Amino acid sequence: MRWQTWRHITKLDPDKVITKEEIAEIAASETDALMLSGTLDVTPENLAQLYDNVRDAGLPLTVEPADPSCARFAGIDYVFVPSVFNAGHPAFITGLHKEWAQHAEIQWDKVVQEAYVVLNPNSSVGRLTRAKCDLSPAEVAAYAVIAEKYYAMPVFYIEYSGMYGDPAVTRAVSEAVSQTRVYYGGGINSGEKAAEMGEYADTIIVGNAVYEAGPSVLKETVKAVK
Amino acid sequence: MRWQTWRHITKLDPDKVITKEEIAEIAASETDALMLSGTLDVTPENLAQLYDNVRDAGLPLTVEPADPSCARFAGIDYVFVPSVFNAGHPAFITGLHKEWAQHAEIQWDKVVQEAYVVLNPNSSVGRLTRAKCDLSPAEVAAYAVIAEKYYAMPVFYIEYSGMYGDPAVTRAVSEAVSQTRVYYGGGINSGEKAAEMGEYADTIIVGNAVYEAGPSVLKETVKAVK
Repeated sequence: MRWQTWRHITKLDPDKVITKEEIAEIAASETDALMLSGTLDVTPENLAQLYDNVRDAGLPLTVEPADPSCARFAGIDYVFVPSVFNAGHPAFITGLHKEWAQHAEIQWDKVVQEAYVVLNPNSSVGRLTRAKCDLSPAEVAAYAVIAEKYYAMPVFYIEYSGMYGDPAVTRAVSEAVSQTRVYYGGGINSGEKAAEMGEYADTIIVGNAVYEAGPSVLKETVKAVK
Repeated sequence: MRWQTWRHITKLDPDKVITKEEIAEIAASETDALMLSGTLDVTPENLAQLYDNVRDAGLPLTVEPADPSCARFAGIDYVFVPSVFNAGHPAFITGLHKEWAQHAEIQWDKVVQEAYVVLNPNSSVGRLTRAKCDLSPAEVAAYAVIAEKYYAMPVFYIEYSGMYGDPAVTRAVSEAVSQTRVYYGGGINSGEKAAEMGEYADTIIVGNAVYEAGPSVLKETVKAVK
């Protein structure tokens, strides 16, 4: 299944524990893909452990590395590589990417470029990247235009990480781009919220709720957007 | 003439004085295009003045704005929009671009995206962008890989601004990219230097020498690369 058709992605954190039973429930939820991703304390080792646990779930597998050491290609369908457009430091836009290109063998045919805007200043990713989060819908939409027209990014990811965001932002972004796919992630823990953001986003991402409410949240959120 | 075929560009600074006779000599030099560009003290007014002076020179005209206020489209063939990949502040990679997209009517079919690496820390552009200039050829080449493969930039611009650079850098970049055009600018004031950098760069840019040695430097540098 090509990633361009995904409507619902489940994000799993290598630094968190998940059981075999929970993985079976995720696999049965009709989510379109698994994204292995975390901001803090992700290592090649716990990433490999999570990979081993989910590799037989029958779902497309992606990795979204927070730094070059976790850009794993083996057994992975796609590597979604983020750039945080509203970061406070260039490391998160071009710097870590340069380190990666200098030292790694990159399978570019597996790379999907993601332009992120991080909107929760209190999240791990907000703090790490020193993201400037106080942005109007028009400002986020302007970042999306730059992502699409200037940088040719196939994905624009509105990341509220752990907090449910402003649907007006997602709507403004969806109206600003044409080719670039709009991803929304953050605080989706019900079918209602999935439907609200899924009206404007091409793809919604459910992450924390899997750990907090349990995998049963997936069926509900999948149903709301498909 | 499509910009992709240009081998030699003459860069003129709106903040500097140039006579009608000098413009006639530039026009006769067989340079491929004029780029109106400066880092400091460029205003819509002095840009318009320079435009009026060169519009009848019979050469393709481009503007390379240092900030959104100077992104002029009227009467211009292309607007070359830089992003400084090794800048010390995100404003020069995504921030000013976002401001531009938020407030301007952009003719995207005239925009050419330029990934810059600025390598002279004492130049105006080096100081303004707080560029991290202490980079090996391999590091600059890694930026070029990111520019081409991650950000799909059509131009990678090695900018030594006012100082003649290291040909090993230009060679490493030319070996690292395939589709992206390699631009070299900085300190070219003789046919010999033009030939040395032109061996690896697709396009060389002559700027300061036009003001220092006079436009006669153009014929010599054009001849060396064509």
